[in-house]
Amino acid sequence: MTRFDGRNVDALRPVKIDSEYLLHPEGSVLIQVGNTKVICTATIEDKVPGFLRGQGKGWITAEYSMLPRATAQRTARESSRGKVNGRTMEIQRLIGRALRAVVDLEALGERTVWIDCDVIQADGGTRTASITGAFVAMTQAIAKLAEEKQLAKFPVTDYLAATSVGIVEDHGAILDLNYVEDVAAAVDMNIVMTGAGRFVELQGTGEEATFSREELNELLALGEAGIQQLIALQKETLGELANKVGGNE
Amino acid sequence: MTRFDGRNVDALRPVKIDSEYLLHPEGSVLIQVGNTKVICTATIEDKVPGFLRGQGKGWITAEYSMLPRATAQRTARESSRGKVNGRTMEIQRLIGRALRAVVDLEALGERTVWIDCDVIQADGGTRTASITGAFVAMTQAIAKLAEEKQLAKFPVTDYLAATSVGIVEDHGAILDLNYVEDVAAAVDMNIVMTGAGRFVELQGTGEEATFSREELNELLALGEAGIQQLIALQKETLGELANKVGGNE
Amino acid sequence: MTRFDGRNVDALRPVKIDSEYLLHPEGSVLIQVGNTKVICTATIEDKVPGFLRGQGKGWITAEYSMLPRATAQRTARESSRGKVNGRTMEIQRLIGRALRAVVDLEALGERTVWIDCDVIQADGGTRTASITGAFVAMTQAIAKLAEEKQLAKFPVTDYLAATSVGIVEDHGAILDLNYVEDVAAAVDMNIVMTGAGRFVELQGTGEEATFSREELNELLALGEAGIQQLIALQKETLGELANKVGGNE
Amino acid sequence: MTRFDGRNVDALRPVKIDSEYLLHPEGSVLIQVGNTKVICTATIEDKVPGFLRGQGKGWITAEYSMLPRATAQRTARESSRGKVNGRTMEIQRLIGRALRAVVDLEALGERTVWIDCDVIQADGGTRTASITGAFVAMTQAIAKLAEEKQLAKFPVTDYLAATSVGIVEDHGAILDLNYVEDVAAAVDMNIVMTGAGRFVELQGTGEEATFSREELNELLALGEAGIQQLIALQKETLGELANKVGGNE
Amino acid sequence: MTRFDGRNVDALRPVKIDSEYLLHPEGSVLIQVGNTKVICTATIEDKVPGFLRGQGKGWITAEYSMLPRATAQRTARESSRGKVNGRTMEIQRLIGRALRAVVDLEALGERTVWIDCDVIQADGGTRTASITGAFVAMTQAIAKLAEEKQLAKFPVTDYLAATSVGIVEDHGAILDLNYVEDVAAAVDMNIVMTGAGRFVELQGTGEEATFSREELNELLALGEAGIQQLIALQKETLGELANKVGGNE
Amino acid sequence: MTRFDGRNVDALRPVKIDSEYLLHPEGSVLIQVGNTKVICTATIEDKVPGFLRGQGKGWITAEYSMLPRATAQRTARESSRGKVNGRTMEIQRLIGRALRAVVDLEALGERTVWIDCDVIQADGGTRTASITGAFVAMTQAIAKLAEEKQLAKFPVTDYLAATSVGIVEDHGAILDLNYVEDVAAAVDMNIVMTGAGRFVELQGTGEEATFSREELNELLALGEAGIQQLIALQKETLGELANKVGGNE
Repeated sequence: MTRFDGRNVDALRPVKIDSEYLLHPEGSVLIQVGNTKVICTATIEDKVPGFLRGQGKGWITAEYSMLPRATAQRTARESSRGKVNGRTMEIQRLIGRALRAVVDLEALGERTVWIDCDVIQADGGTRTASITGAFVAMTQAIAKLAEEKQLAKFPVTDYLAATSVGIVEDHGAILDLNYVEDVAAAVDMNIVMTGAGRFVELQGTGEEATFSREELNELLALGEAGIQQLIALQKETLGELANKVGGNE
Repeated sequence: MTRFDGRNVDALRPVKIDSEYLLHPEGSVLIQVGNTKVICTATIEDKVPGFLRGQGKGWITAEYSMLPRATAQRTARESSRGKVNGRTMEIQRLIGRALRAVVDLEALGERTVWIDCDVIQADGGTRTASITGAFVAMTQAIAKLAEEKQLAKFPVTDYLAATSVGIVEDHGAILDLNYVEDVAAAVDMNIVMTGAGRFVELQGTGEEATFSREELNELLALGEAGIQQLIALQKETLGELANKVGGNE
Repeated sequence: MTRFDGRNVDALRPVKIDSEYLLHPEGSVLIQVGNTKVICTATIEDKVPGFLRGQGKGWITAEYSMLPRATAQRTARESSRGKVNGRTMEIQRLIGRALRAVVDLEALGERTVWIDCDVIQADGGTRTASITGAFVAMTQAIAKLAEEKQLAKFPVTDYLAATSVGIVEDHGAILDLNYVEDVAAAVDMNIVMTGAGRFVELQGTGEEATFSREELNELLALGEAGIQQLIALQKETLGELANKVGGNE
Repeated sequence: MTRFDGRNVDALRPVKIDSEYLLHPEGSVLIQVGNTKVICTATIEDKVPGFLRGQGKGWITAEYSMLPRATAQRTARESSRGKVNGRTMEIQRLIGRALRAVVDLEALGERTVWIDCDVIQADGGTRTASITGAFVAMTQAIAKLAEEKQLAKFPVTDYLAATSVGIVEDHGAILDLNYVEDVAAAVDMNIVMTGAGRFVELQGTGEEATFSREELNELLALGEAGIQQLIALQKETLGELANKVGGNE
Repeated sequence: MTRFDGRNVDALRPVKIDSEYLLHPEGSVLIQVGNTKVICTATIEDKVPGFLRGQGKGWITAEYSMLPRATAQRTARESSRGKVNGRTMEIQRLIGRALRAVVDLEALGERTVWIDCDVIQADGGTRTASITGAFVAMTQAIAKLAEEKQLAKFPVTDYLAATSVGIVEDHGAILDLNYVEDVAAAVDMNIVMTGAGRFVELQGTGEEATFSREELNELLALGEAGIQQLIALQKETLGELANKVGGNE
Repeated sequence: MTRFDGRNVDALRPVKIDSEYLLHPEGSVLIQVGNTKVICTATIEDKVPGFLRGQGKGWITAEYSMLPRATAQRTARESSRGKVNGRTMEIQRLIGRALRAVVDLEALGERTVWIDCDVIQADGGTRTASITGAFVAMTQAIAKLAEEKQLAKFPVTDYLAATSVGIVEDHGAILDLNYVEDVAAAVDMNIVMTGAGRFVELQGTGEEATFSREELNELLALGEAGIQQLIALQKETLGELANKVGGNE
């Protein structure tokens, strides 16, 4: 039984990554996953947060935001409301943590990579699209440092991408939920995985529902397959830089 | 190889739940998991948030905080800093979402259950202890409503408890990490599960590390066993109320 | 003497307006003025702010923001800093006030048009590009209302566009300053004008400098000519809708 | 005529001070005055606020908070509301100021003692219980410094405790008001006094009422007697440390 | 031994109250106590705060602020810092509470009197000058209501004024401290009293010092005498309105 | 046709500048323009904001506020609301920018002049009165520095004053609008000009209206004449200091 938009349960939406999307940032992409569009940029700053100072280690941190009309109904700006809400904080923390898992922070040196993910159009899966796009922007920005001979070793140790899976009535387990499916889902899971197929983050949530061990296994299989397709696209987008990741070059 | 505090890898710390701990709240416990101590209270409010009004459905929401000296170093109060940080928001959202998975919100009616989890002493696992304790406080508060004949049906549909598991060098996968183990862990996973053994939340995170599918399986097995012990203690604490959960009575 | 980028003193940068740029908003454009790129959206809300309630009049209000890496150096997000700065407030107020001058608010009825201008790339003139783009997005959104037969009369009474002019050493008065010119300018003036050539806003500022009446006259002439070119482009972008403006149709 | 809870007008409620109540802080007590329960902790920090830097003097500062369900109705958290209210600020300032009156700040050296008073159950008199408990926690924390030979002289110069007195219809002047009495009181006075019987703070307030000089005298006599009983209990709690206070040892 | 400014220990500074100082407010005065100058205004609002609604009772609330250069060193504005500090909150609460003690809130009806005290020049005693001045502004504003026949009974039941007393080395107990004396004082006490000589507020504070019962008695005597002089001046300022206070007319 | 208050269209309201109005600030005036009254103070601080540090240049910055009852209806304090609104920010930025245009910031040296403009009574034109008054206060404060031989050269290069002009039905273009005229105006323009008759700021705004080039010319002529009268009064107020401005002495 095919999904609303005609996809099979195990199909990703069309994915596109435009790189060098903006003029100023050291790394920038526009990632489109179906109708979800996110601008991801990476900025290198030559210092680290206070808790890391003097340890010879770098840091990666992320901020995430949605334009007010990324959504069907206008969402009030967090700057106007004067505070960042809980969902945004969770997503920001997730993106930063995920990227840190594939970067050798000692090799990065005492620098911070700031990741900014700004959703200009939302149709489900904005946090996983952000991670997948941010990986590319980050790698480009770090590659600039490498070109300037500022790094003894290329610090990105593996690829990293993310997708969502979920359980929806009538379809069971499905890959890459769009907004309508996300709202309907009884179980929603975000998976972040490396090129080597190892987990970085696994966040499964029953929405006023629960899930069994068998369902979990099914979701993990779907997610793993989807992520490997995303990583293939990242490699293609990075072109010559692709071989630097994982220190192959 | 035993752990610092002498436990086996699959052993919980000593757990104790003092119920009716405070005078005023409709439900209240002090839960102790090793040196971690959390006061959990439940408050019934006869209205729901705006987005639910008029739908005949209830809501469960949670707030979480730590006393400044719950920790080894004093932590500045969030009220003094004027905002709630990202970690706190994540935990609050997790607690509320987890409890909602085992409550029939229609049966609760247009009421909000406010859960407050205040950590008075922290030694790792404060969020999972909060969930385990909050379930008891919530059930007591809802039972008061039931006693007053305000509910057609007892809305708590199953037991719910939580624990952490993780991977620590030298020990591999272990159950119920204390603070020192949590800091050392390469992988950290919080599991929330029902009495029926179904997952409600699964949050696994590599801390600048990753984990394989086999390691995941091992962690899930440890967590499941620990949670069933916690649920046994919840039943004992609830005494006569225990049979009401899941509508057995 | 030609300018850095080869333009004459009275030349606009290349301007492009992509309309229907986003899926969700009632009106949306991406306007590009040289390297400055702004997403402008218009949202119709069926209520007005408190101070207007019950008067049968509508309102137009605007919010403006820059992505952190719209600029050469990363700018901290206003949501993270917890407040909107003075420059942003000034620009937001300017955009809303300017648009209100060409809308018959009684004819709009008790509705608010929310304008959101999000700068994704900045190279000078972001506030004037925002006004020029927002006019198009607003007109499209109001046209949707008109199509739905919700308006007795088309409320947009004239075209509206904006540009900057300034005085720069070596060049004298110039039109449409990019960032480098803006920084170098002794005098900076933003002009908002209607299709009929009437002023809506005139904001001239000496930057640690002053200007004479003759210089003012020269600046006004340059600005007026530039604005008429921008309005020609707005008409082209609006296509069939163009004739509705000013009640010609 | 005895009071609601059977006490005489000049009787304190049962008072209990559990010391070394928490694992981490340098000083900590749980003080219970009737149903009022407050956790008081003391933290030593090796620096002083900016206005004192370089003067060789220490500082004592306090923060006060109530758990949301310390009260009969749930009180919204100040961290959620994003600001500390006026009552809380008054109490915090009172606690810090009171304790500073019995500490030789030069002898303390350039250190700050942070006092945290967290009310877990409230039944009137939380601020005076906080002061009485905080004195013990502070003395223990300072004694740890003394044991580590970091102080030339023991800086606590005298005992310090606090209670409330008030005028209630039918009873006249009474000692140690619980919540019900506090609400009913026409006049409410908090008295902070030293072991030597000298005043540190006197805050008398007519609640939409006034009081005469004679009534004031009566209130002061009741308060003084009550405070000396509280100080006797502090001495007992401090045990061997008791003699260090006032430099007797 | 006379004081720095030549006064005797029991002498007030020169006091002046200019009434009807501003054009817009229902009541307004400029009160000068020596070099301390405060603008006090009273505003009548035809509603009460939520907690009083529907009870047929009025409310009196106060706000207090200092101009940045009321002080010798510029003080940052509370609006710029985004929050009101503890001292300000204490003073605001004190002013409101004090005035409520001499107003029959039922007779006032469901109205709020807003008192604004803005210190334009500070030289000690700003809170007591604020109370003394605010009483006059409030009485004028309430008298306007009475003139409009909106009150069955004049609700101001007695006069109210305030002063400070303190203990300063070399002088002992003194009346009406200026800034230099306030800084030097070991004990500082604010007294608010009615025309009938009854206490409304008594706030005595040892500043890293303590005081005996004898010293307290001496301070109270000084304060009482000073307040009666201030009330005489209030009567003179109020002119014909003076007899309305206390229902004499 | 004369205006409501009897003025001709080209007449200023009566203007009065009381200098040395307050005890503490280095410069202070009370400026009255009709019923508008503003206290302007100038404070010298021996450091500059971060972005200027080490460049040997000074800075001038301004803050603006209104007392709650400066207006006919009470306005809530920005400190109570916890943020400064957009109008206030615009005005603050305008005042600072305008003054910087007539000060040689290198000659000022690494110092900040803080200007505070506090409106105690508002009847239109508060921002232009603030600029006119602030110029005098600033010049006095800088003259104190000069007297102390801290400046090689007097850094105030010219006089500076401001007024408003506007277009009001029945009257056409008028000078110096009071509040009633300001509300009625279709076009409102603030002009800041130097003693030499050069523009510093020109801010013309159609209020849901527009204006032609001819109307602009008429407004500029009125404003210029008004400003020269204000500058004559500034010179008179400054007395002996007047010749220092512009380096004549």
